[in-house]
Amino acid sequence: MKVSIVIGSKTDMELAEAAGEILKQLDVDYSINVLSAHRMPEYLQEHIKATIADGTKVFIGIAGMAAHLAGNIAAHTSLPVIGVPGDGGPLNGFDALLSTVQMPKGVPVATVAIGKAGAINAGHLAAQILSVADERLQNSISEARIANKEQLKKENDELQVS
Amino acid sequence: MKVSIVIGSKTDMELAEAAGEILKQLDVDYSINVLSAHRMPEYLQEHIKATIADGTKVFIGIAGMAAHLAGNIAAHTSLPVIGVPGDGGPLNGFDALLSTVQMPKGVPVATVAIGKAGAINAGHLAAQILSVADERLQNSISEARIANKEQLKKENDELQVS
Amino acid sequence: MKVSIVIGSKTDMELAEAAGEILKQLDVDYSINVLSAHRMPEYLQEHIKATIADGTKVFIGIAGMAAHLAGNIAAHTSLPVIGVPGDGGPLNGFDALLSTVQMPKGVPVATVAIGKAGAINAGHLAAQILSVADERLQNSISEARIANKEQLKKENDELQVS
Amino acid sequence: MKVSIVIGSKTDMELAEAAGEILKQLDVDYSINVLSAHRMPEYLQEHIKATIADGTKVFIGIAGMAAHLAGNIAAHTSLPVIGVPGDGGPLNGFDALLSTVQMPKGVPVATVAIGKAGAINAGHLAAQILSVADERLQNSISEARIANKEQLKKENDELQVS
Amino acid sequence: MKVSIVIGSKTDMELAEAAGEILKQLDVDYSINVLSAHRMPEYLQEHIKATIADGTKVFIGIAGMAAHLAGNIAAHTSLPVIGVPGDGGPLNGFDALLSTVQMPKGVPVATVAIGKAGAINAGHLAAQILSVADERLQNSISEARIANKEQLKKENDELQVS
Amino acid sequence: MKVSIVIGSKTDMELAEAAGEILKQLDVDYSINVLSAHRMPEYLQEHIKATIADGTKVFIGIAGMAAHLAGNIAAHTSLPVIGVPGDGGPLNGFDALLSTVQMPKGVPVATVAIGKAGAINAGHLAAQILSVADERLQNSISEARIANKEQLKKENDELQVS
Amino acid sequence: MKVSIVIGSKTDMELAEAAGEILKQLDVDYSINVLSAHRMPEYLQEHIKATIADGTKVFIGIAGMAAHLAGNIAAHTSLPVIGVPGDGGPLNGFDALLSTVQMPKGVPVATVAIGKAGAINAGHLAAQILSVADERLQNSISEARIANKEQLKKENDELQVS
Amino acid sequence: MKVSIVIGSKTDMELAEAAGEILKQLDVDYSINVLSAHRMPEYLQEHIKATIADGTKVFIGIAGMAAHLAGNIAAHTSLPVIGVPGDGGPLNGFDALLSTVQMPKGVPVATVAIGKAGAINAGHLAAQILSVADERLQNSISEARIANKEQLKKENDELQVS
Repeated sequence: MKVSIVIGSKTDMELAEAAGEILKQLDVDYSINVLSAHRMPEYLQEHIKATIADGTKVFIGIAGMAAHLAGNIAAHTSLPVIGVPGDGGPLNGFDALLSTVQMPKGVPVATVAIGKAGAINAGHLAAQILSVADERLQNSISEARIANKEQLKKENDELQVS
Repeated sequence: MKVSIVIGSKTDMELAEAAGEILKQLDVDYSINVLSAHRMPEYLQEHIKATIADGTKVFIGIAGMAAHLAGNIAAHTSLPVIGVPGDGGPLNGFDALLSTVQMPKGVPVATVAIGKAGAINAGHLAAQILSVADERLQNSISEARIANKEQLKKENDELQVS
Repeated sequence: MKVSIVIGSKTDMELAEAAGEILKQLDVDYSINVLSAHRMPEYLQEHIKATIADGTKVFIGIAGMAAHLAGNIAAHTSLPVIGVPGDGGPLNGFDALLSTVQMPKGVPVATVAIGKAGAINAGHLAAQILSVADERLQNSISEARIANKEQLKKENDELQVS
Repeated sequence: MKVSIVIGSKTDMELAEAAGEILKQLDVDYSINVLSAHRMPEYLQEHIKATIADGTKVFIGIAGMAAHLAGNIAAHTSLPVIGVPGDGGPLNGFDALLSTVQMPKGVPVATVAIGKAGAINAGHLAAQILSVADERLQNSISEARIANKEQLKKENDELQVS
Repeated sequence: MKVSIVIGSKTDMELAEAAGEILKQLDVDYSINVLSAHRMPEYLQEHIKATIADGTKVFIGIAGMAAHLAGNIAAHTSLPVIGVPGDGGPLNGFDALLSTVQMPKGVPVATVAIGKAGAINAGHLAAQILSVADERLQNSISEARIANKEQLKKENDELQVS
Repeated sequence: MKVSIVIGSKTDMELAEAAGEILKQLDVDYSINVLSAHRMPEYLQEHIKATIADGTKVFIGIAGMAAHLAGNIAAHTSLPVIGVPGDGGPLNGFDALLSTVQMPKGVPVATVAIGKAGAINAGHLAAQILSVADERLQNSISEARIANKEQLKKENDELQVS
Repeated sequence: MKVSIVIGSKTDMELAEAAGEILKQLDVDYSINVLSAHRMPEYLQEHIKATIADGTKVFIGIAGMAAHLAGNIAAHTSLPVIGVPGDGGPLNGFDALLSTVQMPKGVPVATVAIGKAGAINAGHLAAQILSVADERLQNSISEARIANKEQLKKENDELQVS
Repeated sequence: MKVSIVIGSKTDMELAEAAGEILKQLDVDYSINVLSAHRMPEYLQEHIKATIADGTKVFIGIAGMAAHLAGNIAAHTSLPVIGVPGDGGPLNGFDALLSTVQMPKGVPVATVAIGKAGAINAGHLAAQILSVADERLQNSISEARIANKEQLKKENDELQVS
């Protein structure tokens, strides 16, 4: 278990799976848990300890509105914590963005974009972090990026209008 | 000890004292603690338990930026928790407001205005909450309000320009 | 009648009922009235006096846009007033949030989240306030929270993906 | 007394005087009162009735933060009410703007710009409203505008750089 | 012709009609024109002159996005100009609100709420302005308000839940 | 006269001069005029015609708050119009940005950054536009950019810390 | 090839075509390419060089969210670059607007409105820029504008309600 | 050289040094370079390649306004890139936050808080990322955190008011 993805409520499962999908493609182990920082803080803290003991090296916290989840995880570990602001609620995730990114000195959360794009990028960022000490993973990431680039180039060559 | 005021960092001491001043005027006991939800979560949790055992009935959490403090307290008690968004940082407390008020279902934070006005009102609101079961306090609050109203009326009668 | 829920227009009835539902589950008496602060200020003032005489201890004001309702109630009583910013209108309740929470010194409104989540939390918060002097209610609230926590824990145990 | 200027607190006196100054220049009678909608609602309502009886035809309400003052006046009269959002507080009057302008159907507030520019324009707008039925005032306003325009033209002719 | 309603594009016709409907109910004459300040400035200026010659006393300008229409009308007349920020476009009228209300010293626009509620209130405000010198209209407005108030009171008496 | 810089009030003269300074460095002729779109619309229109007759090819409109100036110029010419949102007023130019950039279909304003940086860039952009048909100017711009780049490179080589 | 339209992803093709449509009507050559500044920076740089060699005089960059595309193009050429903030994502293009317009000193992006209206205006602005040195194009633009104006005038004459 | 800190202009040197200070305390090598993504893109790209060849494993990009710097670095490497939104300019870094965090799918930037707090946290986050494969560093980080926690606890024990 290298990456622990935690969501604050089941409604964010689609975002968790989007992050997980990227990790699966890069052959990185991960788990998904639904553990609200506000409704079950003790279980969240238990999970953090247990999953670190199990070998987790990076956390991804995904939550909407007053999104305290990633910040809460970061308060209980010095491992890197990635935060994805959920896009639910009447403010479309603008509240979650500020609640996730504006962390005080000493307890950073590595925040990515609001919603689906951010969840996908949380998967990419978690892999990048693990790749710092894993040359094989670094190569997989680079290769996937180059393949994507060439695919986009090809699409542009075919699509272009003039 | 009826009200526990908690701030996330010493820089918010002025706000804590503004809230405390109102409680002092109304003869309500209170304590002030500096306990960051992110930098010392275990000590915050210990404090919550200890102060409730000591008779605390209402909490006031004051914090800026990604203000998780009041929400964190609310995650550990079912007593009423008032949140004051601090006005520090480049966004002037707008981030703290959203981080404090947009709590998920089941874990409310009674949020008041950003900064000094909010801190003062947190003192008033804590007293109002305690007054629900304390007729003497209810009377003190009403009398203070009426005195204030008459004072403002008098000032207007003297000041008015026509 | 312990809690008086007031909405500014019939379009907010769903929010009023969401707050009421929580109170019903906790066996707390409440009433719902549709009394616009702008279109029928005298009737709103009459209601405030009458319902306090009837035993109301906490108010919940729910309104959208330039949401003055909760603030208006707070101007006429020293009892705790909870404000729920409605999420209607082109700004999705962002205007109602600022109009509800940014109250001046001396007249607090205990503001909760915008829209449905806030309405539900207004119910919870009203019960928490009443529970300060009602041990039985305090126990009901704690038990409901623990039951919810264990239910979520169970769902996570079953749902989790790894 | 043609125009009643009301401010919510003494801190807005400078704005009230800016509005009054314009009215004085146009020879329109006005009064200034400090009557908080939240701290002294009964005295505000008394003032509205009394000043209408005295001949007031237009109101100017100036307030900051959760600025309910103009909206409150509008709830008690069908005469035109102008609202000036004060620029005080950590959000620089952005909250006051939304609280003043986003009024519900049936109870308009004629909102002008935040702060000093708005206060000055409230004076102009009040005079324009009164001028609808006062040809002499209409002429004074037009003449002042033309004089201002020619002055600015002259300044440009002198200042211009090329 | 007492009130000239001008919209910047046909897409705002629904808003113009909402304003007109209120004026019709109060028996106030009005016209509707589609005259873009940006695409046909000369025709807009011609219209302003012609309609004033025809007896127009109040203007209503309705436009979205960078809404310059009401401000443009105000630049060409000293009569009262009401501005309605249209709610179209990706920012839901937030841009139109700021473009309409933040007018510089000397050229006020009486701004009302964004979108439909604002359009309706523009009708009410125009009538209120005309009523300053028209006792019959003042009575019609008051009577309509009281009828509305009593209707809402009756609805509340029937609807209320307890 | 190749570029006409217009400001809405003397308070924006510093911004006009910042734009002019860039044009002077590139040896492009320009004029500066203070012509408010709201307070002197006829003189603004006269200026637009006169300066085009004089050879102006690009306009720069600089204004704050409800910044209609650049949009107004664009309504009266099909030449390129650059808009600089002024940073004055309580909203720091955020209102001016939206009022300048959100122009309706058919009447674009080429908007640059708020305040000083934008004013400087308006100078650069005006020169770039003129350079499309002026190879000598194109070369001057390229050379200035390369010189700036090499200067920054040199500063980095000297400053760098490791 | 006079104008090079570049989009960051295929999802913005509709916006590219809206810009292209205007250029086609004015008989201005253009190309459309899908070249992400983040996913294929080398290909973007290659394209910029190649298309300038081919005669491109103006660029249009269209991108959403953290829209760096237009700014990136501007970093690699001194020709005028127009930026269209895409309206996709949870913030409706508000993020793209700020990412496009707030460029640092020396590297302007001529920013137009968010989304469809902006894309259309990017076409108009590109043509206006080219027209500075192309009298025939200047005439075509003027004629199209006048035709549009007269059409709108005719529609108003037919539509108007009074 | 483990961490490369890059700023877009000398005005952000204080932020770069705040990040560097944290790394120095944790004995992590770093360099600081001033390389604008817009004014010297080729030199920035050269630096990225050279510093990776030198052993850099994590980048920190610090920039204000339309902050493209971190995103630009991320476009040229698959190593983790941390973005710090600078707090300069009229929008206080709100523009820089959105320009940094809202990256498209596939190219994440690990964004931290606006300004000084974010710069300090960028140092912490870079160390956390490197610590994933460096037990000694992990221990240093944990020890520093615990020491900080105990220091804050001691301060609270001494400071507390009751």
